[in-house]
Amino acid sequence: MAQIPAFSDEQIDYFMQEALNEAKIAQSEGEVPIGAVIVYENQMIACAHNHREADQLATAHAELLAIESANTKLKSWRLENTALFVTLEPCIMCAGAIINARIPVVYYGANDPKGGATRSLYSLLEDNRLNHMVKVYEGIRGEESGLLLQRFFSNIRAKRKIRKAIAK
Amino acid sequence: MAQIPAFSDEQIDYFMQEALNEAKIAQSEGEVPIGAVIVYENQMIACAHNHREADQLATAHAELLAIESANTKLKSWRLENTALFVTLEPCIMCAGAIINARIPVVYYGANDPKGGATRSLYSLLEDNRLNHMVKVYEGIRGEESGLLLQRFFSNIRAKRKIRKAIAK
Repeated sequence: MAQIPAFSDEQIDYFMQEALNEAKIAQSEGEVPIGAVIVYENQMIACAHNHREADQLATAHAELLAIESANTKLKSWRLENTALFVTLEPCIMCAGAIINARIPVVYYGANDPKGGATRSLYSLLEDNRLNHMVKVYEGIRGEESGLLLQRFFSNIRAKRKIRKAIAK
Repeated sequence: MAQIPAFSDEQIDYFMQEALNEAKIAQSEGEVPIGAVIVYENQMIACAHNHREADQLATAHAELLAIESANTKLKSWRLENTALFVTLEPCIMCAGAIINARIPVVYYGANDPKGGATRSLYSLLEDNRLNHMVKVYEGIRGEESGLLLQRFFSNIRAKRKIRKAIAK
């Protein structure tokens, strides 16, 4: 039976800071700034950031990479008794991976109104028809996580404008 | 703009047979028998089968592995103008991966009433709120695909019964 790890507010803040650090690494690599970490027995056993452009893999989202890394670390596809921290609300794929890995609890930062599948468009992690349900905490360092993304996309739009102006 | 590849009935049957062959390889390896192939310009560019137990990865579903293989083959996370054939209705994670990879069309075999996310529990591939929609054809060699799974799980239950009887 999976146990939901209990964390203090300080621990939650600490692990989300680690996820934010990962998001900033993604940004420095020109990737959409999203980071994730997985915690087991109060230790961070996996951390990852979005790597889609570098790897040219549709699946290279922070959560999915962190899950695979944790599976390898624990030598098990089951991640019971772990917790996932991620800066953005998981998409459909990542929500499904969280369920498939039996992760019991997810803490996330900003909501994603266009593609978020745990609260915004769907509540996939809390569907009692499925063989696994996940406890979800939203809005953890949400403003900071959201600002990182907003600035990233503003920069991209500004660069596009400059390129268009030069091309004219 | 993604184009939906057009196939004859013979081609659909041929590619689903290839997916079924992959499912049988999974079975021979003691994995849940599910297989998938991805087709691009009438050629099979990726094929994969469920590999969860061998890899101990929660993400090692046939569709996800086929998508990553096709991404690598085409050197792009975008799989526009491809088609995915899979023996079982995709789960939430795989439906999300199909959307993330921009695959325009999916042909699948058996329905999965407990976890299927493209028709049974959800219609995730046909949600017009998302930035990509997928054409879905269900029930292609569905009976054969379903029988493979039924026999696999019957065998597991029978083996469990024998083990219990011996242990008594």
